[in-house]
Amino acid sequence: MAEKSVKVGIIGFGTVGAGAAKILIEDAQQITAKTNLDIELVKVVDIDTKSPRPVKLADGMLTDDLDSLLNDNSIDIAVELIGGTTIAKDVVLKCLAAGKDVVTANKALLAEHGCELYKVAHENNRCIAFEASCAGGIPIVSALRTGLAANQVDAMYGILNGTCNYILTNMIAKGEEFEVALKDAQNKGFAEADPTLDINGGDSAHKLAILGSIAFGCEISLDDVHVEGIEGISKDDLRFGSEMGYTLKLLAIGKREDDGKISLRVHPSFIAKDSPLASVSGSFNAVCVQGSAVGQVMFYGRGAGMMPTASAVVADIIEVALGNSGRTFQALTMKGHDQAQAMFEKIDNLVSRFYISIMCKDQPGVIAQWSKVLANHEISISGALQHEGRGPDNSVPVVIATHPTVEKNVAAALIDLAALDTTSGKPVSIRIVDIPEDTD
Amino acid sequence: MAEKSVKVGIIGFGTVGAGAAKILIEDAQQITAKTNLDIELVKVVDIDTKSPRPVKLADGMLTDDLDSLLNDNSIDIAVELIGGTTIAKDVVLKCLAAGKDVVTANKALLAEHGCELYKVAHENNRCIAFEASCAGGIPIVSALRTGLAANQVDAMYGILNGTCNYILTNMIAKGEEFEVALKDAQNKGFAEADPTLDINGGDSAHKLAILGSIAFGCEISLDDVHVEGIEGISKDDLRFGSEMGYTLKLLAIGKREDDGKISLRVHPSFIAKDSPLASVSGSFNAVCVQGSAVGQVMFYGRGAGMMPTASAVVADIIEVALGNSGRTFQALTMKGHDQAQAMFEKIDNLVSRFYISIMCKDQPGVIAQWSKVLANHEISISGALQHEGRGPDNSVPVVIATHPTVEKNVAAALIDLAALDTTSGKPVSIRIVDIPEDTD
Repeated sequence: MAEKSVKVGIIGFGTVGAGAAKILIEDAQQITAKTNLDIELVKVVDIDTKSPRPVKLADGMLTDDLDSLLNDNSIDIAVELIGGTTIAKDVVLKCLAAGKDVVTANKALLAEHGCELYKVAHENNRCIAFEASCAGGIPIVSALRTGLAANQVDAMYGILNGTCNYILTNMIAKGEEFEVALKDAQNKGFAEADPTLDINGGDSAHKLAILGSIAFGCEISLDDVHVEGIEGISKDDLRFGSEMGYTLKLLAIGKREDDGKISLRVHPSFIAKDSPLASVSGSFNAVCVQGSAVGQVMFYGRGAGMMPTASAVVADIIEVALGNSGRTFQALTMKGHDQAQAMFEKIDNLVSRFYISIMCKDQPGVIAQWSKVLANHEISISGALQHEGRGPDNSVPVVIATHPTVEKNVAAALIDLAALDTTSGKPVSIRIVDIPEDTD
Repeated sequence: MAEKSVKVGIIGFGTVGAGAAKILIEDAQQITAKTNLDIELVKVVDIDTKSPRPVKLADGMLTDDLDSLLNDNSIDIAVELIGGTTIAKDVVLKCLAAGKDVVTANKALLAEHGCELYKVAHENNRCIAFEASCAGGIPIVSALRTGLAANQVDAMYGILNGTCNYILTNMIAKGEEFEVALKDAQNKGFAEADPTLDINGGDSAHKLAILGSIAFGCEISLDDVHVEGIEGISKDDLRFGSEMGYTLKLLAIGKREDDGKISLRVHPSFIAKDSPLASVSGSFNAVCVQGSAVGQVMFYGRGAGMMPTASAVVADIIEVALGNSGRTFQALTMKGHDQAQAMFEKIDNLVSRFYISIMCKDQPGVIAQWSKVLANHEISISGALQHEGRGPDNSVPVVIATHPTVEKNVAAALIDLAALDTTSGKPVSIRIVDIPEDTD
């Protein structure tokens, strides 16, 4: 069978760009042998054409001239690996207008501007492929869109940020405070110098918006996602949660709630220690999907890094080259955002279980006071633990696990708990997520 | 966008056929809304048109007349869900000749006759899609073929038979002998009345042949797969293995060995208790893939059952309807069997670690004897344990874990160990599989 020739240009010669180039150049023969496609990297665009990179390009391939890629009609696929939401957006729009299909790893771009970009792609009869934007090398986008296409997704729980999972794993394993664990992660290359977007949950929210749009078949904007990060997590809360049988993860959750609405949220979540997601350690990612036909399916692997992400980029290049991504992209429809918005749960109405910890003065009447506050707000207590032994200000920690309760009740209760004269400092609440067990 | 109309006929109205029909009928609107395809089930063929089924078909849809499906040119996709390798093979050949794409869940058929059927499909410019043939609803075929396409697969470890995993889980949890656990599995519907193909490893071998052909890009026949089942596993060996830190799974393994050859095998395997696959319990399946770029990726979920398997069947119907399966099927090439065969490791040359257990008479000189046998066969001992306390014939159990050693040496050593006058009964060997850890 004659090999179909497909030419590729990469824009952005950073870590992932180098990884993708490496695979395309070094594994060209294997890819051709496997797919009958002659996929040729012909151009790499970057403002920096001087610094050494981990892969050697043929002379003349690297340029700072984007137009030389845009105007080259032989280039079928443009791979956007710059990152960010301004220049990258402009680049993607130009590539689509120039008649090129786009492969990208850019979660922030798609989360913020995906709807607009997909529309432009449709208008230009082109496609945007983005497996690499979520969970690195784990083929979760294609699983949701293709392998699980016959299912209604009832819930999706994701550990989608390796930086946060690495930090939390170490906080738990070593009993470290957050700042210490963050510094350690930065020193070892698992957190950026500016880690804000990771530790505040924003990166996970980007990925949830993308995966959720496929899972629930509707446009999701970042405003639809409730986001909390891990900056406020203390080693004490981790220890108390552990005593109650929980471990902490930053989960990205999309779930059809009992009232029929879809909750979209990223927040620290206590999960049972024997839950499958509990064993996901370090910088690894995992996604647990509950589908109407398939039941529970889980995907696990490296969510970031040069080669895992490049694996997803090149998989997309192959699928675009085969024509499959284009067909899927053109065919798959999602509910527009205006229509979809009514489907999303407001965080105030979320029903969840909660871990609440209060530092209480060690004196008579304390339990009576905080228990009355919870009762006033119709919060039923599943378990409670008051440790003997003193914290600062002669205070003792009280930790409570609630039954399912409405979010706004907990928010109001926390205000009243803080106002008690028996409370020291600020009470903490962390949602407990009971991932349903799928067993024989 | 005008909906593309695609008509489907199912052949075989058993459990999975009913599940697929259920999704196609009950979820028709959601599928159309999601895919812009009007996928219509128009015919179901089965020799039994009388027995009640869990889903109600429109009048006239159910027939025992296969020709009415074959001759209906409006039917684009034929779904073979009969099972078995004789009538099903004939049906698939007829469907392809009649110009229909084929979706199947039939692992035995593809394992035994896949190469021939794929050739006929190619000749007729049609495709065969088979996600449902391996690991039920877990989209592992599409992951290997598409999501991980940019990788060379270095190894694949699969728990692919839910019956065996259910039995082993219970043998370990309850300390039961194999026959008791099998009977319990049959009573609860997790094992067939005739469980042979499951418990002898044959079913896992079928699936390994299919997944391996995609993973390693070459035609694999069942003769290339070394197969051992779980019938000979005793609760004592499970207990001793557990004491040494191992749990037992029936693993289907495809691996590039150190000598460059690919080993293909199904056999009981001791794996470390903290290995990710160790926690896969009951009838669930899982596949752990090691890819050259992505590192370790794991997939977990329900490997069988009406709705999980139907989920995979309908996912394939959608992909065939979109034209993607056809494109992939036509493009993807694999090394022919004659060429590939030289790549496969012969089991005698496999290097592995082994668990060996010997019932030894409790008298002086025993350790000296068995240790000399192992030394004679160049088998180095990693760990050894002799329990105090007597088995039958006043014998004591000795269990040994070896360092990596050549299979044929162990086979020869077992003969010599059995021949020792200090040995009672027949020594047992079980391979220890050290799945490489992928960590930060």
